Amino acid sequence: MSKIRDFFYEELPLVNASLYRELAELNPLVREVAEHVLMAGGKRLRPMLTILSARCLGYAGDDVYPLACSLELLHSATLIHDDILDNADLRRGRQTAHLIFGLHRTVLAGDALLALANKIVARYDIPSMNYCVAEAIMNTAAGEVEEIAQLRRPKTDRNVYLEIVRLKTADLIRAACCCGAMLAGADRQMLEQAAGFGLNVGMAFQLVDDALDYDADSGLLGKPLGGDLREGKMTLPLILYLKSVDDGKRQELLEKITADELRDEEMKEIILNIQSMGLHLEVREEAGNYLDLAAQALRLFPERKEKMLLEEIIEVVRSRKF
Amino acid sequence: MSKIRDFFYEELPLVNASLYRELAELNPLVREVAEHVLMAGGKRLRPMLTILSARCLGYAGDDVYPLACSLELLHSATLIHDDILDNADLRRGRQTAHLIFGLHRTVLAGDALLALANKIVARYDIPSMNYCVAEAIMNTAAGEVEEIAQLRRPKTDRNVYLEIVRLKTADLIRAACCCGAMLAGADRQMLEQAAGFGLNVGMAFQLVDDALDYDADSGLLGKPLGGDLREGKMTLPLILYLKSVDDGKRQELLEKITADELRDEEMKEIILNIQSMGLHLEVREEAGNYLDLAAQALRLFPERKEKMLLEEIIEVVRSRKF
Repeated sequence: MSKIRDFFYEELPLVNASLYRELAELNPLVREVAEHVLMAGGKRLRPMLTILSARCLGYAGDDVYPLACSLELLHSATLIHDDILDNADLRRGRQTAHLIFGLHRTVLAGDALLALANKIVARYDIPSMNYCVAEAIMNTAAGEVEEIAQLRRPKTDRNVYLEIVRLKTADLIRAACCCGAMLAGADRQMLEQAAGFGLNVGMAFQLVDDALDYDADSGLLGKPLGGDLREGKMTLPLILYLKSVDDGKRQELLEKITADELRDEEMKEIILNIQSMGLHLEVREEAGNYLDLAAQALRLFPERKEKMLLEEIIEVVRSRKF
Repeated sequence: MSKIRDFFYEELPLVNASLYRELAELNPLVREVAEHVLMAGGKRLRPMLTILSARCLGYAGDDVYPLACSLELLHSATLIHDDILDNADLRRGRQTAHLIFGLHRTVLAGDALLALANKIVARYDIPSMNYCVAEAIMNTAAGEVEEIAQLRRPKTDRNVYLEIVRLKTADLIRAACCCGAMLAGADRQMLEQAAGFGLNVGMAFQLVDDALDYDADSGLLGKPLGGDLREGKMTLPLILYLKSVDDGKRQELLEKITADELRDEEMKEIILNIQSMGLHLEVREEAGNYLDLAAQALRLFPERKEKMLLEEIIEVVRSRKF
């Protein structure tokens, strides 16, 4: 597991330098917002996946970096608009952009970042890449809209939940892998494998995220437990819990969730029940199924050291504690 | 002048049908917002310019329509975000989207429309087109941010104003013409002419718009006179007026504009002075200079009937009364 960490540490300065260079294209008023968001840190998971996918499929050029950055730009654009909509105060421990720079500049900075990312991708002269990222952003927006539509709608079932996860999270991670593969000139079959790998890693990543929100061992996450429950997000641990209780109890909880009338001690009880029943672990197991599919998709990848790194990423997501 | 009207009437149903078809790609929750905004009408100036540019340069294919629509999608995405930021209640006489659908869906619908437009453009397999629209959206966002930064900053001079107009309005109209030319396989020189035509028409279009805001004859515009003054927008008629008054008066007005302390009768007086001094007409003359440049850029265009229609568009912008 140390090799992937070494890889991240080696590549991170290169990715960040490239990000910084690309941001210089932006109008100064927009750039300031973008830098605040992008330079706050982050795992850079999407750029790393683009780099690894490209290299594993034989692409050695240094111009993978701007492409990799464009995926981070898209991701951060969605975060910027997300924070506004959630009225979030903090992101990665820092004050969110809209509170510092105001709503106007922040919405427009998100738009400019989306455009900058599209522009960078267009430089590569590979139209399918443009199509791929445009589709991913359409899906991300659709997923977020669907998620909001399902807030406090306790009828949300597993299938609706999984479709939201696919749209809002997994599809951009899929795009990150596909862009790397396209840059490497992958053929159709290989492209499908890259897409399958990214999609399944992305599904698992979000499922683990949603499990961690109910996991007492995830203290390092920097946010209090049960945030999703408080916001009325119908994630899988809660869906499983509601399925497990008797009809009367379920009806009572459904009504309270819908009306946003759960008291603090009731929320605590739900969280404790989910933990004692191990439902968060059940969600992690389901994430594990997606990771197994991701590993299968990797099988056809050439035997390069990057393939082992991609396999390690699978294990990192599987054992993620924060 | 009737030929261009005939052309618009003929093409409008085709453009709208294509728009409608493309919107079907969107998630239903997003589509509803998009349809509300797009089906409210509008001049469809940008799609018409794309169609005319393509045809004038010899492109006869029907697949110009989705491309033309993508420019309207980009334009409406910027309008959607704009309305939220302006906290506008009405757009084209209808209630604005965010008041009907809420902030969340509206911001995300804007993002999805931007993405859909990029996706449509990517279908054409001409990477320079993707680059062109991405750059135009970056510029539009930058122009809007700059415009907001200049609100109630009476130091705004003509050059700053013109740069904002170029970014926020003219560049997307330039892109509309360039995309048409690129689809027609225009060579570099012809592409530059198309860009020059679009940019100058766009500059003039916005200048006339800003002149109309002070023009008593523009009653058909559907919005009260002096809206820009009320919002603290430093447009050219006001810049010219501030230059024309003596130092003491200027200082007094500058301070009141900055502090948003102009009383209604003071605003009325400014509007009347601008009208009696003919400063709104001076702005139209300046728009006329840009239109002359647009006409020059057209000279190298082939002698097709579409060239005459593009020339008519110049005259339509020149004599626009609403």
